Amino acid sequence: MSLLTVGTVAFDSIETPFGGVDKVVGGACTYISWAASYFTDKINLVSIVGEDFPQDELDQLKARGVDLEGLEIKKNAKTFFWAGKYHENMISRDTITTDLNVLDDFDPVLPAKFKKSDFVMLGNLTPAIQDQVLEQLVDTEGAFVALDTMNFWMDIAMDKLKEVISKVDVLIINDEEARQLSEEFSLVNAARIIHQMGPEYLIIKKGEHGAMLFQDDNIFYAPALPLREVKDPTGAGDTFAGGFMGYLAKTGDVSYENMKRALIYGSTMASFCVQEFGLENLKALNDKKINDRVKLFSELVSFDIE
Amino acid sequence: MSLLTVGTVAFDSIETPFGGVDKVVGGACTYISWAASYFTDKINLVSIVGEDFPQDELDQLKARGVDLEGLEIKKNAKTFFWAGKYHENMISRDTITTDLNVLDDFDPVLPAKFKKSDFVMLGNLTPAIQDQVLEQLVDTEGAFVALDTMNFWMDIAMDKLKEVISKVDVLIINDEEARQLSEEFSLVNAARIIHQMGPEYLIIKKGEHGAMLFQDDNIFYAPALPLREVKDPTGAGDTFAGGFMGYLAKTGDVSYENMKRALIYGSTMASFCVQEFGLENLKALNDKKINDRVKLFSELVSFDIE
Repeated sequence: MSLLTVGTVAFDSIETPFGGVDKVVGGACTYISWAASYFTDKINLVSIVGEDFPQDELDQLKARGVDLEGLEIKKNAKTFFWAGKYHENMISRDTITTDLNVLDDFDPVLPAKFKKSDFVMLGNLTPAIQDQVLEQLVDTEGAFVALDTMNFWMDIAMDKLKEVISKVDVLIINDEEARQLSEEFSLVNAARIIHQMGPEYLIIKKGEHGAMLFQDDNIFYAPALPLREVKDPTGAGDTFAGGFMGYLAKTGDVSYENMKRALIYGSTMASFCVQEFGLENLKALNDKKINDRVKLFSELVSFDIE
Repeated sequence: MSLLTVGTVAFDSIETPFGGVDKVVGGACTYISWAASYFTDKINLVSIVGEDFPQDELDQLKARGVDLEGLEIKKNAKTFFWAGKYHENMISRDTITTDLNVLDDFDPVLPAKFKKSDFVMLGNLTPAIQDQVLEQLVDTEGAFVALDTMNFWMDIAMDKLKEVISKVDVLIINDEEARQLSEEFSLVNAARIIHQMGPEYLIIKKGEHGAMLFQDDNIFYAPALPLREVKDPTGAGDTFAGGFMGYLAKTGDVSYENMKRALIYGSTMASFCVQEFGLENLKALNDKKINDRVKLFSELVSFDIE
């Protein structure tokens, strides 16, 4: 089934305690699309770049089955640029530069053929733009919609954010964001309050501690894979979301049981992402590598108590 | 099989964002013994208290199968007292008072019948005292020994600590301590280095994020049970250790597979502990409550990928 992905396509400069890269291709929509491309070749990408964005990168996405008709290439303009530096713990980071460039005028218009997408992944953007995309869907009821956001939007646009959240099926945020959104410290209580805001499913990402899926009183916990080396956490959350939604689009099954599997595939894709800088590892995967790693997740949590 | 538990028996005054208690019974050895008592009634306790310690609390321990011949009751002296206040996150805390009292002269002497204990749980104490206990065992090779410690001893007595660690079978510490001990940020790398220090097994506790078991290249991850309310984290780590070692003593099986089960039982006991202040919840358990909760752990992580 088809998956609409919306979000930034960007250049990133990244510095971590283990090295750095300068102006590599990044952005939420890029990570989401690459991760999802291992599960479905019906990806409808909606984003914006400047004339400076390399054609070769677009060709690679096309080759993965990503339809770029919804990608605006703006003349005489530059692609969104972010530069950041991670602290020793590889979780907190300082933003060095944010050049919005083309993103300042992003006014997403969905090609007609995108308006009937079965699955929709709204990457982190202003809630108003996320809503603008939702409003263009022909069949909002029929589409299964996931939304990512961040504390910044909770600080400056909470009302609009809550309006968009009320329209989606699954909200994907981190633990800190879940606490801010719900004003509850316990994640179990936070989930209850966020369910009341609209989303039937809630996924709380906890970085190196894994991710949790909440539906009614059901809770599923997918640990992150313990890794010898994490080089660059950039895009891990988007890669998780791309793997998760890609797996749902592949199977067309949004039951709780299947969503648990999707969470494991999302965690698997994220574990590859962080092992190299930028998209490097994510571009070099195949089914065997992915399935071998999924098995490690089974081994990690399996125990047998009669 | 018999379990020797060594550590503090104390009074605690605890303040959390959810309330507080004044001078309730606590201490590592108390939590360990109570938790283990649901799995084995052959517990040999070694500790020290003052004349002010309530006889009723000792009678309760005896009734749970705890042999108190190794508990020194010091005349004209006061029991160890700790007062602390937890921050909003329920992880970090400020120590308000530490009155060592009897602990200042703690010179543990094992009763003859304790010297052949099958399992030994060395609660957090000075490494020198932990070593003193080990040296009194008749059959160190035959006993399965676990040790808990803290960053404070790494700061002031690292050499002695490493000497004791080299003699134990399983080290039980938290993530921060594992990083300090190994000088590695990645827990996978930390485990490799700590294995080289001696312990075949390493358990890294991560509070609300669960606990991990390492043996060679094997890794097992037991999440913590997501709870609606955590009232008091005091003693959770000791309760975990007590449940873990109690289950091993009950089954007499120290295989990796059985140790995974023991980790789940330890996590289960800790989940009860934090739901009320002090020992309150831990004193009110039974097999059914414990087994019902163990099932929740199965549900929490179970998924099915062909």
